[in-house]
Amino acid sequence: MELYDVINRRRDTRREFTGARIADDVLERLLSAAHCAPSVGMSQPWDFVLVRSPETLSAFASHVAEERDAFAATLEGERAETFGRIKIEGIREAGLGIVVGYDPTRGGPHVLGRHAIADAGLYSAVCAIQNLWLAATAEGIGVGWVSFYREEYLRSLVGMPAHVRPVAWLCVGPVDGLPDVPDLERFGWRHRSPLASVVHEEAYVPRLD
Amino acid sequence: MELYDVINRRRDTRREFTGARIADDVLERLLSAAHCAPSVGMSQPWDFVLVRSPETLSAFASHVAEERDAFAATLEGERAETFGRIKIEGIREAGLGIVVGYDPTRGGPHVLGRHAIADAGLYSAVCAIQNLWLAATAEGIGVGWVSFYREEYLRSLVGMPAHVRPVAWLCVGPVDGLPDVPDLERFGWRHRSPLASVVHEEAYVPRLD
Repeated sequence: MELYDVINRRRDTRREFTGARIADDVLERLLSAAHCAPSVGMSQPWDFVLVRSPETLSAFASHVAEERDAFAATLEGERAETFGRIKIEGIREAGLGIVVGYDPTRGGPHVLGRHAIADAGLYSAVCAIQNLWLAATAEGIGVGWVSFYREEYLRSLVGMPAHVRPVAWLCVGPVDGLPDVPDLERFGWRHRSPLASVVHEEAYVPRLD
Repeated sequence: MELYDVINRRRDTRREFTGARIADDVLERLLSAAHCAPSVGMSQPWDFVLVRSPETLSAFASHVAEERDAFAATLEGERAETFGRIKIEGIREAGLGIVVGYDPTRGGPHVLGRHAIADAGLYSAVCAIQNLWLAATAEGIGVGWVSFYREEYLRSLVGMPAHVRPVAWLCVGPVDGLPDVPDLERFGWRHRSPLASVVHEEAYVPRLD
């Protein structure tokens, strides 16, 4: 699939999982794409924990439901109503969760390019996620990035040591198809902004909105 | 260009810039690809400052040279020697710097998916960078992500307000070609690790290296 088609087709998926198991060779290609991402000082500081155990999926889904309620409690009126219609995860339906971790101890004692910006390693882990997500889109596989969780909970759930930071839970699995319009736009939560509103020439110019 | 070819061809570019100006329509496609990235709660929290002024490019290059020296001073023996051979930026040669910022005020007072993980917005800005980088690769344009700088310096250089965080300086421009092997591997700084070393089943398992 052509790159620009993939970039435009990519969606954050919650509703469309079929429940079928992703083929091993496809999963291997997604993980290889992630592992091929750029990383600061070539530290490759990511980990991927593949979770399929129904008990672990259910435990995480319950935790996410609590965090959903916590966020919902901060909303009022139209925002509360709109949020009520939005599905935020497909943890059990996808059947596979990929927990992405960031390990700052990778890359030796001197990571080239990280001395001035500690978060540069974290950025690398996110680049890996985006590679995986695009590869999934090209393979017809859905990905839903869930961020309604507490990092300590997820770290403990999958046994990550204290120095590894959980960066994402990705619901990954075959889908019926991908929607043309992002869910949050379809349900009236937010709309996409024009490109011109985020581009500046030579120096930052505040937006008027 | 097919997605997997793009993912494999992508390189962090420092040496190969021709100095030619990137065509406006190509730049527009790169920025559109970035703006099409996933973002938490559809907040689209990124900014792109396009820097071409020779004075600004030179000022930034001087700052980066100082930070290079600061890092070099922490190295000894073989590490110091190897680092000495590595070019870390192509700021002036590329002729265009794209400063990517993260603005946490985007997306309204309640950003869906960010209440538990403040950095989720920062992750969105990085997804945009990876989209831009892959689009550039497909267009035959080089990208070099420079992270030898202090955030306060870069913020001030391009006039970003205090609430916007600089996430990257990207050197962007036409190139002679992209090397087959990453520079850091070619010059003996680090080598790529096997995929199996970062994949875990059901729970995190410490590596033996």
